[in-house]
Amino acid sequence: MTLSTPQQVRPGATLGIVGGGQLGRMIALAAANYGLKVHVYAPDADSPAFDVAAAHTVAPYEDETALAAFADACDVVTYEFENIPHATAAVLSEHATVRPSARALLTTQDRLVEKDFVNGLGIPTAPYRAVETAAELDAALAALGRPAILKTRRFGYDGKGQRSIRAGDDAAAILAGFNGVPCILEGFVPFLREISVVAARGPDGAFAAYEPCANEHRDHILALTRVPAPGLDAATGAAAIDIARAIAEALDYVGVLAVELFEVEGPAGASRLVVNEIAPRVHNSGHWTTEGALTSQFAQAVRAVCGWPLGDTARTGGMAVEMENLIGDAADRWPALLGEPGAHLHLYGKAEARPGRKMGHVTRLVPPQTEG
Amino acid sequence: MTLSTPQQVRPGATLGIVGGGQLGRMIALAAANYGLKVHVYAPDADSPAFDVAAAHTVAPYEDETALAAFADACDVVTYEFENIPHATAAVLSEHATVRPSARALLTTQDRLVEKDFVNGLGIPTAPYRAVETAAELDAALAALGRPAILKTRRFGYDGKGQRSIRAGDDAAAILAGFNGVPCILEGFVPFLREISVVAARGPDGAFAAYEPCANEHRDHILALTRVPAPGLDAATGAAAIDIARAIAEALDYVGVLAVELFEVEGPAGASRLVVNEIAPRVHNSGHWTTEGALTSQFAQAVRAVCGWPLGDTARTGGMAVEMENLIGDAADRWPALLGEPGAHLHLYGKAEARPGRKMGHVTRLVPPQTEG
Repeated sequence: MTLSTPQQVRPGATLGIVGGGQLGRMIALAAANYGLKVHVYAPDADSPAFDVAAAHTVAPYEDETALAAFADACDVVTYEFENIPHATAAVLSEHATVRPSARALLTTQDRLVEKDFVNGLGIPTAPYRAVETAAELDAALAALGRPAILKTRRFGYDGKGQRSIRAGDDAAAILAGFNGVPCILEGFVPFLREISVVAARGPDGAFAAYEPCANEHRDHILALTRVPAPGLDAATGAAAIDIARAIAEALDYVGVLAVELFEVEGPAGASRLVVNEIAPRVHNSGHWTTEGALTSQFAQAVRAVCGWPLGDTARTGGMAVEMENLIGDAADRWPALLGEPGAHLHLYGKAEARPGRKMGHVTRLVPPQTEG
Repeated sequence: MTLSTPQQVRPGATLGIVGGGQLGRMIALAAANYGLKVHVYAPDADSPAFDVAAAHTVAPYEDETALAAFADACDVVTYEFENIPHATAAVLSEHATVRPSARALLTTQDRLVEKDFVNGLGIPTAPYRAVETAAELDAALAALGRPAILKTRRFGYDGKGQRSIRAGDDAAAILAGFNGVPCILEGFVPFLREISVVAARGPDGAFAAYEPCANEHRDHILALTRVPAPGLDAATGAAAIDIARAIAEALDYVGVLAVELFEVEGPAGASRLVVNEIAPRVHNSGHWTTEGALTSQFAQAVRAVCGWPLGDTARTGGMAVEMENLIGDAADRWPALLGEPGAHLHLYGKAEARPGRKMGHVTRLVPPQTEG
C-alpha cells in the first residue's frame, strides 16, 4: 500500500487513471511526457488508453479487490470518467490519494445534487425540479413550462439520458421511457451562446483557468470549440472564470474541471451567465489546449493531481484556436486532414467508427479574428 | 505475415519501432496521437519506450525468430537506434516494410562508409583515413596532422568510441585502447559553429526540412540547440538544407534523418559547410520541434514511414526556440522547471540518472532575437 497522503508525486511514480477512453489516453500521453508511469483501470478490454499505459487492469468498477490492488499500485489516482459508483471512489480513497476527491465526484455525477450545490453558492442554473413520478412531472411542467428537458439524474453524456418535452408531447410516456430512474426536469434556457471554462486547482489552492471557449453542439454532441469565444465580452469572460473558481474552491477541488455555461440575455441589454453542467475531469472543450495553449489541459491535470506547479494557460503565440470534433465517419477524412497545412490531427485509436462516437479531433491555430 | 509493400498505412495499424530509448518513446507518443498501435523491440527489459507502447518484445537484436515474429506483427517498421547488425535489418525487411531501408542503415552506421558516401556526392567532410594498425595510424597522423580524432567506425554516440590525439599523445596506446576494432582518424576541423538539419523524406520523394539549428556540446554531448541558428546566414542555411536533401535522395531515404554539419571559415571571408555525421532517425537536435514547430520530428517520422503527407515544418508562431538537454542529475531540477513560466519539460522515464545519461529536455519558445 502506498502512502495515503503524498504532498508531491515524483517523476517515475505511477499515476492511476480510472476510465480508459480518449480522455484517459490523452492524460496518459501527457503523464508519460513527464516521466510518470501510468496504470489505467477500465472494464472494457478494448480501452484506447491501455495502448499507451505501462500497466492496465480490466475489471468492473464494482470489483473491490481489483480496485484495491490497482490503487495500491499507484502513487496517485485520478479519473477520466466520473460516472462510477460512489463505493468505487470510496474503495480507491482507502488505498491511494485520489484527486479529485470522492466528494467532488459525488457532487457532480448527479444533476440534482450538482444544481443544488451550484445554487447554494449563489450561482444561477436553469430552473429545475426533481422528478420521479408522473405527478411530479406534471407539477414540474406546470412550474417550468414547455419546452423543458427531462434528464436522468445520473449517467448522462452527449445527449444520452435526456429528452425534450414540447407542447403536445406525451410527458408521461417520455418519463416512462426512462424506466423509473430518478430524473430532473430542466427549464428551457434561450441562450445567446454556450461557453465553457476549463480550469485547474492544485492541492495548495492554486487556481489557473484557460480563457473561456465558445462551443457549438450538433445532435447534442460538441462539434466545434473556438477560443477566444466570438462575441464574448471581457467582463462576462472574467465572470465565467470567477464562477469556475468559486465552484472549484467550494469543492476543495484538485485536478482539472470544466464548467459549461450559457450566456443568456439579461435585463437592459446586459447578459448573465447560467451554469449548465460541471465535469470533474478534463473536457472535450479543452482539447484545443494541446497545441493552442502553453500547457495542455492533460498536462495541467497531471500537474494538479501530482501536486506540481500549475502550468501557464496562455494561448500559444496569441493565436486564435478552433477545435473540430471528428464524430463517427468524419474520421475517414484523416488523409485530407493530414495534408491540410497547419492542421493538428488527433485520432483516438478506436477500432470501430459508430455514429455519434468521438473518433478524433483536429485543432487549427489561426490569426486572431476581429470581433466575430 | 503482413503485406510487404503497403503504399500507405492506415490509423489503427501497428508501427514497429526498433530500439526502446527516449527517441522510440517519443515516436510512440506521436504515433499514438495518430491512432496507431505501437510495438517496440528492444533487448533491455527496462526500456523507456515500452511504457507507452501497446506491445513490446524483449529480445536481442540477433534473435532472428523474435525479429521475424515482431515484423510479422507490424504493418511498417522503423528505428530509433541505428547500431543494429545488418542481419537484423535484413531479417526485418523480409517480414515487413522497413523504413528507412537496410541500405540507409548500412551506409550511416559505419563512419568510413558514411564519409565515403558523402564525399562521393561531392559534399565535403573532415579529412579522414581508415585505421586498423599502428602503422596505418602513423601514416594517417602524418597526413592529417595533430590534433586529430580517432573514432571507432561503428557504435559511437555522445563521444563514446572516440579519443583526441594531440601533440605528445601516445597514439599507438590510444589505438590499443580500442582493442583492435576498425577505426577512422578524422582531421581536426576548426569550426565557426555546429549546425544540424533535421529533415524528412516520404516514399513518394516528398522532402521537408526544418530550419537548421545551432548546437552546443558539452563533454561531447549535445547541451543546447537554438533555432534560428544565431549568426547563420540565410544562404548557408539553405546550402545546409540542400546537402540534407542530396543525402536523403541519394539514399532513397524514407523517414526522418539528421545531418550534422560544421560551418568553417572559407576563403575570402566566406564560410563553407562540412558534413560531420548523418543520423538515420529522429535526432536530439530536433527535440525543439515538439513545441517549436507545427509538426514535431516524431510526428513527421510517423508520417514519412507510414507514407502520409509530410507535415508543415514552420516554427510555431514565428517564435525562436531553445532546447536544453537534461543530462544526469540536471533532471533533478524538474520542480523548478515545472514552475518556470512557458518552459516545456520532458522527462524520459528512466529509472537511474547516471552521469552523461540523457534524462530529459526542456524547450523554451522566446521572442525572436536580433542577430546573435
